[in-house]
Amino acid sequence: MRNISLDVSYDGTRYSGWQIQNNASTIQGVIEAGLATVLKERVRITYAGRTDAGVHALGQVIAFKTETSMTGEQFKCALNALLPQDIRVMEAHEASLSFHPRYSALRRWYRYIIWNGCDAVPFFNNYALWIKRSVDLSRFETYCRRIIGTHNFTSFATVGARENPLRRVFECTVKKKGDFIVFDIIANSFLRKMVRTIIGTFLELEREKVPPKVINEILRAEDRKIAGETAFAGGLYLVKVFY
Amino acid sequence: MRNISLDVSYDGTRYSGWQIQNNASTIQGVIEAGLATVLKERVRITYAGRTDAGVHALGQVIAFKTETSMTGEQFKCALNALLPQDIRVMEAHEASLSFHPRYSALRRWYRYIIWNGCDAVPFFNNYALWIKRSVDLSRFETYCRRIIGTHNFTSFATVGARENPLRRVFECTVKKKGDFIVFDIIANSFLRKMVRTIIGTFLELEREKVPPKVINEILRAEDRKIAGETAFAGGLYLVKVFY
Repeated sequence: MRNISLDVSYDGTRYSGWQIQNNASTIQGVIEAGLATVLKERVRITYAGRTDAGVHALGQVIAFKTETSMTGEQFKCALNALLPQDIRVMEAHEASLSFHPRYSALRRWYRYIIWNGCDAVPFFNNYALWIKRSVDLSRFETYCRRIIGTHNFTSFATVGARENPLRRVFECTVKKKGDFIVFDIIANSFLRKMVRTIIGTFLELEREKVPPKVINEILRAEDRKIAGETAFAGGLYLVKVFY
Repeated sequence: MRNISLDVSYDGTRYSGWQIQNNASTIQGVIEAGLATVLKERVRITYAGRTDAGVHALGQVIAFKTETSMTGEQFKCALNALLPQDIRVMEAHEASLSFHPRYSALRRWYRYIIWNGCDAVPFFNNYALWIKRSVDLSRFETYCRRIIGTHNFTSFATVGARENPLRRVFECTVKKKGDFIVFDIIANSFLRKMVRTIIGTFLELEREKVPPKVINEILRAEDRKIAGETAFAGGLYLVKVFY
């Protein structure tokens, strides 16, 4: 038995998210269908992170167990020939049998992209959130610093009933790249909609010129209703998973 | 009577090209429908260049005559509120009554983008041609120089029966931007599929290491069958029209 791991990049625009569903096109569903054709057997893949509808990935990681003798490069080529163009296998590795994309992961890196040009650009609709007003980057930086560390992120996420809401954020940065504003957040793992809720809250607070200590008040409230709206899915990218 | 001119940017992916057709979604059709709603009258627009299905524009120029008293900025806002997100009015101007987007144009600037990374990227499918092999940029430069000047472009285009096939190319350049290769061509005007045929031919000649003098031989042949394939529409952008 072998454990094959693939790094997958996808444009989430056309899909109803990652996780397999009946009667909806999902990225997991499309990849499993492709694998079944390549391997001539039904496999269930494991994965690093479940992305929501419209969210993109540069480096989603999946794994599956198989008896076949194909090399990683052969998998990559065979699967890319079957997959739609907006889902691409970037790398294929032979992993140890104990490797699990989610449980073995140490850190995840998500990026959120805002288009801050004065005009809407027709090419960016599915790939960035458009914010027309000029924003105060230094204020965003003060918010970012408050997110770093181990916190109960109940206010900033959709938390399941028996889910541990503690997460450790290692990095949270913001920078300007031309007319784009790019947030990078690295954490041990993320709760559902956590990055988008953080960004949506930052945007509301920045607009009202709210001081950064309010971030800590929101964290302490442990109440999703206190934070801001969940930001647009298309601005979010799963960049890389660290093992 | 007033003559209003709009600079329009669009993502051509979803459309059956610019020109209005029955039973197909075209950019001209969508804009004229939007204008009819805003102006409460049916107008026929004139435009600088007819782009094919899948071709994009950063600065298409259109104009229409109307009696309404709305300002240019009001047009822009009202129309953008109605148009789909992948078609955007970037600027609105009051033009002289004699202004015609096509007949008044002195030069057009088209750009062709090639993604030359070693892996297919799921985000670029509709926006660049993917060429995996490494290419010789200096050879492309020698081809570009042969295109500049006034030539009969019959070999490099789809020429109508009574159409004058002479065009004057002012600039034809190629440069590398990261893993992208960007061609810029400026001419007085372009024949149908001219840029895509030039690029498709350059790619075939470069792969075979053909010397640049062959470009002149192809031009002299005045025969479309001598040149290469028409390159992928999604790599092409109408950047700007000069008046």
